[in-house]
Amino acid sequence: MHKHRPSLGTLLHHVHVSGPLSRAVLAERMGVNRSTILALTADLIAAGLVSEEHPAGTTGAGRPSLVVRPAPHVFVLAFDVAVDRLTVARVGLGGPVLDRRSAPRTRTGVDLGPVVRKLASLGRELLDAAPPGSVCVGLGASYCGMIRPGDGMVRYGPEMGWVDQAFGTELAAALDIGRPVTVGNEAHLGALAEFERGAGVGVPDLIYLHGDVGVGGGILVGGKLLGGDGGYGCEVGHMLVNPSGGRPCLCGSRGCLEAETGEYALLAAAGRAPGPIGAEAVRAVTRDARAGDPAAAAAVAEIGDWLGIGVANLINLFNPGVVIFGGMLRDVYTAAAPQVEARIAHHAMPVSRERARLTVSALAEDATLIGAAELGFAALLNDPIGERAGRSVTGTVRA
Amino acid sequence: MHKHRPSLGTLLHHVHVSGPLSRAVLAERMGVNRSTILALTADLIAAGLVSEEHPAGTTGAGRPSLVVRPAPHVFVLAFDVAVDRLTVARVGLGGPVLDRRSAPRTRTGVDLGPVVRKLASLGRELLDAAPPGSVCVGLGASYCGMIRPGDGMVRYGPEMGWVDQAFGTELAAALDIGRPVTVGNEAHLGALAEFERGAGVGVPDLIYLHGDVGVGGGILVGGKLLGGDGGYGCEVGHMLVNPSGGRPCLCGSRGCLEAETGEYALLAAAGRAPGPIGAEAVRAVTRDARAGDPAAAAAVAEIGDWLGIGVANLINLFNPGVVIFGGMLRDVYTAAAPQVEARIAHHAMPVSRERARLTVSALAEDATLIGAAELGFAALLNDPIGERAGRSVTGTVRA
Repeated sequence: MHKHRPSLGTLLHHVHVSGPLSRAVLAERMGVNRSTILALTADLIAAGLVSEEHPAGTTGAGRPSLVVRPAPHVFVLAFDVAVDRLTVARVGLGGPVLDRRSAPRTRTGVDLGPVVRKLASLGRELLDAAPPGSVCVGLGASYCGMIRPGDGMVRYGPEMGWVDQAFGTELAAALDIGRPVTVGNEAHLGALAEFERGAGVGVPDLIYLHGDVGVGGGILVGGKLLGGDGGYGCEVGHMLVNPSGGRPCLCGSRGCLEAETGEYALLAAAGRAPGPIGAEAVRAVTRDARAGDPAAAAAVAEIGDWLGIGVANLINLFNPGVVIFGGMLRDVYTAAAPQVEARIAHHAMPVSRERARLTVSALAEDATLIGAAELGFAALLNDPIGERAGRSVTGTVRA
Repeated sequence: MHKHRPSLGTLLHHVHVSGPLSRAVLAERMGVNRSTILALTADLIAAGLVSEEHPAGTTGAGRPSLVVRPAPHVFVLAFDVAVDRLTVARVGLGGPVLDRRSAPRTRTGVDLGPVVRKLASLGRELLDAAPPGSVCVGLGASYCGMIRPGDGMVRYGPEMGWVDQAFGTELAAALDIGRPVTVGNEAHLGALAEFERGAGVGVPDLIYLHGDVGVGGGILVGGKLLGGDGGYGCEVGHMLVNPSGGRPCLCGSRGCLEAETGEYALLAAAGRAPGPIGAEAVRAVTRDARAGDPAAAAAVAEIGDWLGIGVANLINLFNPGVVIFGGMLRDVYTAAAPQVEARIAHHAMPVSRERARLTVSALAEDATLIGAAELGFAALLNDPIGERAGRSVTGTVRA
């Protein structure tokens, strides 16, 4: 056992999230003295996880504090299963997307097998293309559905028609590099990513809404993801907002928030065919609305109205410091901010809304992917040099 | 500084919540050895907070573990400001309501001054009637509105027309016994009380709904009350459930959950005058519904339908282990369970509802009062012998 065990992960987490930091800053942030930082850093250097260097632009007099930076060869594979796209990325310690592959996918009738095989194939391409000496330390995946914590079982993925599909274990088996795949819901991961690196840094009571065909939510309460009894909390998409004559929802009900504010609703309200949809079709509507197309403008206003009702309800329930719109809701919120804000002004309690900031995702298309990468890094950050598990992170070399 | 400081509060909390416990059980629950329990108990006995005795029914052979019980003379005053009633109770360490006073109140136009004076007067009566040697260790209050944590300011209390009223500080001044009054929202306190002593013991993801004229919520996420950015979370009553043609709400909007499920809604739906209302008027409607009165039965079904929509939304958002109906919602849920359950079956995701138990408050009328008492005990349980504050709990004697 190593006496500094808890702090090793803390130090690594600091440079992972903030990038290169001087020993002095690390000592201050962690509330320990510089000799402790020196010892911790030595252990992490020995494990190949960080390096130290003199800060740029310092010469001559004085003894500038050495800068600790995350090792560039340490990475995870992050998988993102979205409604219209499969993406795999090699994400480095510190957060940079080093390489990526993606493939379009059709929306319906897609079985687990082909999806897993495609993801595994893209993942292998990235592993093969990684520079010599690269080390894969984890695998994380984002999925657009309800995920069972622990084993990555997709309990419910209405957009793909998945019920109880063993996605995490199947993807790990297909990759076959001796590592498990940790799976999370896309909006949950987007929330965590925005909290660590995006529009919600420093805001522990945070709501992230992710829109495409479905509308998902990731809600942090006191800096922690709201899981609930089984890990299935945050299901904002099926909040009933229009009980009388609402649009049909993929869940079988009508008038759910996602039925009234998702892609299908926007395109239908604009009188457009629900054919080839995706982010581009949504952007076409909001662009046309700005250009003065009456049907598009009316559609944006209608969807914005329902979105505002949903957000007002969430503000009343969660008293958040920030509400972040991600996925296609970035475009919808940007176009429909007056409607959204009017509904909030009308329906949210003044004391709850007075400090709630509304903004769009800073990580944009990559929010869920970055969140998946964080899942992949979690084990390393929890136990950087394998003290508890008796393992070495350098055990998995490049395939 | 005392070396056992953290554990003193833990031990006292155990006997406060569970009642008399043997040293052996305490050692097991706290994960410490019996000699530690002995030392902790000795400190608490010296402070007059617990006593020890031989367990009942044990004689002769063996050395039975002594039983530690909360001291009967240690109490708090708990204040409960409900819509139709003011209640003050003397609640003992361990949770028993030792004595109580209450007074009816009218619903509108009630200013802060008269309410505070009445509460203080009832509180003084209880202090005067307390047995010699009784020690008041704290003051807690429950209020039917949005409370600012820290100073007990009522930010918004629509039923009484209060906005930014310094309830906590005024009540403390009127009582004038040298102790602050900690104030909480009634539904928040009901949730905490049900979690500690009621229908939600052992269920860290818990929703408590409290109904009277308003409908409030107290939501625990991972065992902690959802506060949000400013402590104003859990406002379930103003969740918009009926956006088209809903009933008017006291907040100025229409179609809020409380407008569709509160007392006014039930009485109006049953065709009864909104005159002298309160728990008895609600019970008359549910009783008549059971007896076959068609208007009453239709009213119960209608209110149950809206309540079911609200609860389904909460189940989707929070994936709770239990939903507890309190206040007049006990009667409504009991009468309208089929409607509530049908809506949940239709609108809540199967994986989120599969383990969500629905039940009524076990503490019944006293849930919010008991929650207020817990607020009053919080400082004592946090620092039983005044090590941190340099105070003695025996400093405040009976008035």
